[in-house]
Amino acid sequence: MNVPFNGIIAYPITPFDEKERVDITVFKNQVERLVTSGTHGIAPLGSTGVLPYLSDEEKEAVTEATIKQVNKRVPILVGVSCLTTERTIYHAKFAESAGATAVMVIPMSYWKLTDEEIFSHYDAVASKITIPIMAYNNPATAGIDMSPDLLRRLLEIPNVTMVKESTGDVQRMHYLRKEIGEEVAFFNGANPLALAAFAAGANGWCTAAPNLIPELNLGLYAAIRDNDLVRAQGTFYKQLKLLKFIVEKGLPRSIKEGLNLLGEEGGQLRSPLKQLSQMEINELAILMEECGKDIQPTAMV
Amino acid sequence: MNVPFNGIIAYPITPFDEKERVDITVFKNQVERLVTSGTHGIAPLGSTGVLPYLSDEEKEAVTEATIKQVNKRVPILVGVSCLTTERTIYHAKFAESAGATAVMVIPMSYWKLTDEEIFSHYDAVASKITIPIMAYNNPATAGIDMSPDLLRRLLEIPNVTMVKESTGDVQRMHYLRKEIGEEVAFFNGANPLALAAFAAGANGWCTAAPNLIPELNLGLYAAIRDNDLVRAQGTFYKQLKLLKFIVEKGLPRSIKEGLNLLGEEGGQLRSPLKQLSQMEINELAILMEECGKDIQPTAMV
Amino acid sequence: MNVPFNGIIAYPITPFDEKERVDITVFKNQVERLVTSGTHGIAPLGSTGVLPYLSDEEKEAVTEATIKQVNKRVPILVGVSCLTTERTIYHAKFAESAGATAVMVIPMSYWKLTDEEIFSHYDAVASKITIPIMAYNNPATAGIDMSPDLLRRLLEIPNVTMVKESTGDVQRMHYLRKEIGEEVAFFNGANPLALAAFAAGANGWCTAAPNLIPELNLGLYAAIRDNDLVRAQGTFYKQLKLLKFIVEKGLPRSIKEGLNLLGEEGGQLRSPLKQLSQMEINELAILMEECGKDIQPTAMV
Amino acid sequence: MNVPFNGIIAYPITPFDEKERVDITVFKNQVERLVTSGTHGIAPLGSTGVLPYLSDEEKEAVTEATIKQVNKRVPILVGVSCLTTERTIYHAKFAESAGATAVMVIPMSYWKLTDEEIFSHYDAVASKITIPIMAYNNPATAGIDMSPDLLRRLLEIPNVTMVKESTGDVQRMHYLRKEIGEEVAFFNGANPLALAAFAAGANGWCTAAPNLIPELNLGLYAAIRDNDLVRAQGTFYKQLKLLKFIVEKGLPRSIKEGLNLLGEEGGQLRSPLKQLSQMEINELAILMEECGKDIQPTAMV
Repeated sequence: MNVPFNGIIAYPITPFDEKERVDITVFKNQVERLVTSGTHGIAPLGSTGVLPYLSDEEKEAVTEATIKQVNKRVPILVGVSCLTTERTIYHAKFAESAGATAVMVIPMSYWKLTDEEIFSHYDAVASKITIPIMAYNNPATAGIDMSPDLLRRLLEIPNVTMVKESTGDVQRMHYLRKEIGEEVAFFNGANPLALAAFAAGANGWCTAAPNLIPELNLGLYAAIRDNDLVRAQGTFYKQLKLLKFIVEKGLPRSIKEGLNLLGEEGGQLRSPLKQLSQMEINELAILMEECGKDIQPTAMV
Repeated sequence: MNVPFNGIIAYPITPFDEKERVDITVFKNQVERLVTSGTHGIAPLGSTGVLPYLSDEEKEAVTEATIKQVNKRVPILVGVSCLTTERTIYHAKFAESAGATAVMVIPMSYWKLTDEEIFSHYDAVASKITIPIMAYNNPATAGIDMSPDLLRRLLEIPNVTMVKESTGDVQRMHYLRKEIGEEVAFFNGANPLALAAFAAGANGWCTAAPNLIPELNLGLYAAIRDNDLVRAQGTFYKQLKLLKFIVEKGLPRSIKEGLNLLGEEGGQLRSPLKQLSQMEINELAILMEECGKDIQPTAMV
Repeated sequence: MNVPFNGIIAYPITPFDEKERVDITVFKNQVERLVTSGTHGIAPLGSTGVLPYLSDEEKEAVTEATIKQVNKRVPILVGVSCLTTERTIYHAKFAESAGATAVMVIPMSYWKLTDEEIFSHYDAVASKITIPIMAYNNPATAGIDMSPDLLRRLLEIPNVTMVKESTGDVQRMHYLRKEIGEEVAFFNGANPLALAAFAAGANGWCTAAPNLIPELNLGLYAAIRDNDLVRAQGTFYKQLKLLKFIVEKGLPRSIKEGLNLLGEEGGQLRSPLKQLSQMEINELAILMEECGKDIQPTAMV
Repeated sequence: MNVPFNGIIAYPITPFDEKERVDITVFKNQVERLVTSGTHGIAPLGSTGVLPYLSDEEKEAVTEATIKQVNKRVPILVGVSCLTTERTIYHAKFAESAGATAVMVIPMSYWKLTDEEIFSHYDAVASKITIPIMAYNNPATAGIDMSPDLLRRLLEIPNVTMVKESTGDVQRMHYLRKEIGEEVAFFNGANPLALAAFAAGANGWCTAAPNLIPELNLGLYAAIRDNDLVRAQGTFYKQLKLLKFIVEKGLPRSIKEGLNLLGEEGGQLRSPLKQLSQMEINELAILMEECGKDIQPTAMV
């Protein structure tokens, strides 16, 4: 089973310039920060990277920039989800040919898809590439909740080898582990569930938080690897409020402002997304300071 | 207040050919059927028309084909919703210049949008066109549930003059009518709620059902206009099972098969959507017969 | 089929004295008001009457007081629901022997009951009495949502002849009518759904509102009987805000204060229930005035 | 702060005889088994003990029997919840005078209670006793979901010193720990969440499972005390399926049958509760064998 990831898989944002065009230079800087911080994988074009807001050309530019910047230091997981099967295949093939380690596919829906439609969608994509696929379940963004039984079926497709669960329900992880077997590779995508997911046996944590607090994210994983629950608990509670904040306010919006607070370039957002209010930015600054970060004094009002 | 619609607003499907390309010829035939059946408006590029599955060029072709085919016999409501504000404006302007009577905008989301983001989105689109906008609330497909208070704010934008409610909660309609005032123009988009919505005072019913049973849809509206609740109730119960079926199985999939059962061309679907099973088709045929339709014997197995 | 009710079935509160003892004198006055107002049935010991807060002796006293005061002027529906089957049977038999027209049974739960357990519960109660039973579905108070299929099964028990639906979902009523047949006797228990339920064909409306605004409740029913939807709509919208208020704030609490506002004795509540705040009372007074009621000036602050 | 519990708090069932009368002899045997198995506390009259199905006299008999049988070997937590404040105070005082270590109070509701009503209810009970109170949140059985903010307020009442959370949402536990402080004593009441709750820092686990598998329940707690997450995970997954089964099928029904499978007396249930089907009993037997238990061959068919 080809499972090229474990640990902390970091999601960069897709920054925009003043005219709402993708800013590849800023993007590469952020990717570099994530790699040098020690995270174990890079995942461009996720929800954090506002995948569905990008044109085909923009997606391709982001994919290529990631692969070039990472330069094989860590594995790369490229988001390729589209509403139609044809477009998903197109981007999956592009990612493979560009050098991605694996692709992530979430069954985006407008019309609720049947299990049969979802299975065929994954099967069609999988048959066109040779790199592994991470099946991603996140009803909050995709509008579809894949049942554990459907996930089990998807895992029978040869190169669907990983599952990312973002329902926020730890029972789903228990089920995956118990029903599909101890060898199933499942990853947690719900930030506030990081501790519970590792306790349940998750292989890794897919998260945008390393843009802001990589030490704490990596520290939690290290404690789990050391079988030290007491330390893991302490590390988790230290970062929990920040994790909840960035989820509640939206990852692209929160990470952009958090980067600014650190003196990094976070770029602009693409409409309809709007930046956080100054009150929210101040709240974020306080939470980041509680996580031990130095905040640029000019960033707060 | 510019409210160019009332009664039965009919939603055509977007048919595809064997290679999953949009089939404009079949599309025009279906639009013609809807107009000659007596429906009071035509709404291309809705959920029924799989709007989000289409490329920019395809959307433009469908818009132009509708306007040409309808030829001013009834008003036209064009769906122009996109994830980004920039693309939504682009298509709204296209629809206006092509001759649409009004546009429909649903706040598609991937990231949950704040009320402020949604308001700015509508405001930006509205400021770029002069034709009226119907604000569409449908959490099941859009992933966002606009509160009655937000809808009230949207209606303060000068050319946002209509609301389409598809939450399936009749209390929302009561609220709109009671809080915003008797003159508010609200349309029902939840098929199984057709009777309750008219009883609550809805101006019209946005529905794909006239592709299959226009007589019954128009009959319900006529009974309401005649203040004949007993007749309305009878007409509604006659079509209720079919209305529930097409919603549960998905409008594009159900309408396509229903057209085939009538001997009409329904075309193909675009993946990942798959056609109904033969068992489901047979069930649909029985429901259509219960609605008084003649089914092509070759269509059933 | 023995269906002794239709129209407006009125629910009296159970008033308490300063020491939180049931006040039978005040109760009888309220029953008398409901009968003389013209309502078509009286239903003591419902949710409005805080049935589960009463001892066996108190329930019996309330039952006997109702029957004596009504004195056969209208039919009486006595609530007899208890957590255990044995106690439910006990009170059903008591109600029958005391002269009740019918009993209402809701499957109170602490542990979620299986369909089989609920069916046996009804069957056991039904076999011990000869008067008809109204099966009552209200997940918000009982903690169990009986499916339409279970309700259909219950209606096969000979003296289970009526269903009261309080889920607030008009589709349930559609289903009952469509699946069980036009002759099914279903009653609406969700006040804000009164118009939609009558439009769907409900036989009657079980409501505490006639304690405060019997003219409007009866007026809605009269318009429906006259097949005058326009008038029904106007009458419904006139009372809607008040209906929503009394449901949201709790029927026993709201009705008690509403009675005080009318200069009637509403008595006290039994703990843990507490009276509305003065701000809520003032809001209620305004809503009652909008319904055309004269408010006692001393009641408002 | 008086927190007399930690670890595994075991909930006995209330067994009935053939005539559905409480069987105190069988009850005492079950209490004895729980004490000698090594559990750290005994909690009669919980949901498992079908508290709301019992008369006042039966509750008192069960309380006295527990205290006599346990004979100070472990602390005792007596459930005293009633719908009315007056009855709850009555039973709390009885429990204290009989020798209970603490009482558990869940805000049973029929009418949804306001936060103010719930607070006053706890405050009134607390003021009448001197032993500590465990506030119990379980929307699935009580019909009310107490917010973390309300729980925080309740903990300010001097002798409300413990919280039992059974919502099944691990985030609630995170919140309690993070917002109320590390010293807050919270207990997990959701069996399938046992591992996640201990990982989040729960003081103990309130569970009926020790009636069937005390070794595994105690083993999980011991691994947590040893800061050995790997062992805790293994022990948890070994018992997870059984934990889920007994919750899904209902604790009183499942534990009774599980006792029979072990050759112990489980007694009868009180109607409307019905015993598990033979197929369910067989499934339970398999799950218990997977947990390492010897099943009586005569118990399976």
